[in-house]
Parts: sequence; structure tokens; C-alpha cells
Amino acid sequence: MPSPRQKQDFPVQNVRRYLEPGPIVLVSSHWQGRSNVMTLGWHTVLEFSPSLVGLMISRGNHSFEMIRRSRECVINVPTEALVDSVVRVGNSSGAQVDKFAAYGLATAQASIVRAPLVAACHAHFECRLRDDALVERYNFFIFEVVKAHVAPSPRHPRTLHYTGDGAFMVAGKVISRRAMFRPDMLP
Amino acid sequence: MPSPRQKQDFPVQNVRRYLEPGPIVLVSSHWQGRSNVMTLGWHTVLEFSPSLVGLMISRGNHSFEMIRRSRECVINVPTEALVDSVVRVGNSSGAQVDKFAAYGLATAQASIVRAPLVAACHAHFECRLRDDALVERYNFFIFEVVKAHVAPSPRHPRTLHYTGDGAFMVAGKVISRRAMFRPDMLP
Repeated sequence: MPSPRQKQDFPVQNVRRYLEPGPIVLVSSHWQGRSNVMTLGWHTVLEFSPSLVGLMISRGNHSFEMIRRSRECVINVPTEALVDSVVRVGNSSGAQVDKFAAYGLATAQASIVRAPLVAACHAHFECRLRDDALVERYNFFIFEVVKAHVAPSPRHPRTLHYTGDGAFMVAGKVISRRAMFRPDMLP
Repeated sequence: MPSPRQKQDFPVQNVRRYLEPGPIVLVSSHWQGRSNVMTLGWHTVLEFSPSLVGLMISRGNHSFEMIRRSRECVINVPTEALVDSVVRVGNSSGAQVDKFAAYGLATAQASIVRAPLVAACHAHFECRLRDDALVERYNFFIFEVVKAHVAPSPRHPRTLHYTGDGAFMVAGKVISRRAMFRPDMLP
């Protein structure tokens, strides 16, 4: 697994490349001297530029108030090697346990926000809260990605996609239909 | 590919099973006697019950006004066999072409809404608009899934997950970590 120093800056307007396929993510937070991390599968890209993403962060999570108050988080994209950590993080609460210590998750300092990067992940997206209009009604947070770090390889990480019931789909083969697009439709 | 009559009713509170992994979807609509279909990758589950999902439907799409006015749509989940149709639907506009006829996409009647089911898809989720509070600002529609139809097999469909740049990740193997969950965490 690449260490954070092996990650490269990545254009924030292109985070759809990693988030649109729908991986489970680890969302880290920091508030009043403590950090936490949660597993999250309910998210969507909302805009290329500014780089906006929406996260449904259930109110029962210890992270909910930490993120609501700090107005920041980091979205980390784990791969197959981290599946057990993803489950452990998802099945425990930061109110009871320091998950980073308990599950051996090394962290690294983010560039802009105070929430830590989960070092073993393939990509890290530092986020600032952009709009909380739907937080009360739906626990839906709209963030702007302000900094992105991505491992240069593998080109197609084996991300995890949760189907419920304790089962994950692992990202499979990649097929290109680039030839079916007009040049002006592609970057 | 199963025909619509081979689909089974599926509990609407469980649609996360098909949507949380993040597949590209075909969203069909109907307004003033005409139907349309678009390709969409920016969606998220928001709640189990009521069964809420959020879709970012870009304003430039012909479907935008049809869905905003009819307040309904169907979310259809295509699989690998439909990749060329997914691209053709995504790269054309309902303002210029009847995509169902042009691309040979058979439809079937929905149970509750007037938008058609795209018959060759693995699953169909009939939706009614629940909240348009973020449509003006973010083109973000919150729908309630009011009826779900799913093919009973295969159990793990080879869904398509768009990464941009004309490339799709195809759903790969499934791994279970069910043994790591307490029984009360699972259905």
C-alpha cells in the first residue's frame, strides 16, 4: 500500500473518477483535539467545479456532530486489502474506542483540513462543508473537495462496494467505450 | 436478459442492495405523452424507510424538465450487456431523438408511475419526487422509491460503474464479511 508521501496531487474537479463508481469510503474527522473515522456508502458527486460531493452521515454516528461542528472531513477511498478494517470501523463507535489505535490505522496530516488522512487508502479528498441546508431533514451534507491526493498506481484500484448484508462487491475489470464518445465529450 | 414479467417484487426498503454499490443507471421519464431516458451516475441512497434516494440530474438534460414537472421517474439498473446502450443514451438528447426506438430499448409499463421500465435492465425502481428543495441550487432531486422490481437471477448482476473518460468498471467478485457483524446488525 502506498504511503501518503507516495500520493500525488490530483485535480479536485476530477474526483468523480474515484467517487462516481460508488466505493465504500472511510470518512475521517477532527474536533476538539480528537479524531475519528467512520465507514460510509451513501454519497454522490454533485458538481465538477466547484468540486462538490454529498454525504449522508447518519445522525447516530459519533462522527455526525464532529463533522457538523468542525465543518470539515476527509473522504478516504480504501481497497480490498482494507476490507476487515472497513468492517471494524463501520461496526464500532468513536464514542467508545479510538478506532485508529484499535484497528492499527496509520494516519497522515492533511494539507488544508485538520481531519487526518487514513494512510493506507488509495485516495484522500479533503473537504470543507459547503451547504448544510439538508442536514436537519436528511443528514445530507454538501462538501467542497478542496484538496485531493491519489496513489499513482494501480490505475484501477480494487475498491469495495457495499451491498448490505455483510457483503462487498470488489471492483472488477475495466472496459472502455471511449471510441463511442465525440472528442468534445472527453477531457 | 430477463423480461419484465420475470422480475419479482422487491422490498423498497432494501434498494440499497442495488444502488449503494454505485452503478450507472438509466433514468426514464414521461411527460405530456412522451417518454425519455437518460444515463446517470450521480446518485445516493438517503434512507431505508421511507425508501429515499437522491439524484443529481443536470439541468442541460432534456429529462430535467420532464422529471421536474411530472415529479416521477424510474431508476433502471443496467448490466454489462447493455454498455453500448448506456453510452448511446448518455451521448444523445431526447430533444432530438426517441432513444427507445433509436437504440432498440424495449419498455414495459410501470405499476405506479407513468414513466416506462427499460425492460432489459436487471432492476427497476419506480420513484415519486419527495423533495425539490435542492433542485434550484444543485439540480438534486430527492425521490421516494414506491415500487421495486428485480430479476431474481443472477444474484450479483454485473453492473456498470462509470469512471469518466469513456471507461466503465464492471462489478467483480463478491466477498462476505458477514461473520464480523453482530446478528442485530444484519437483516
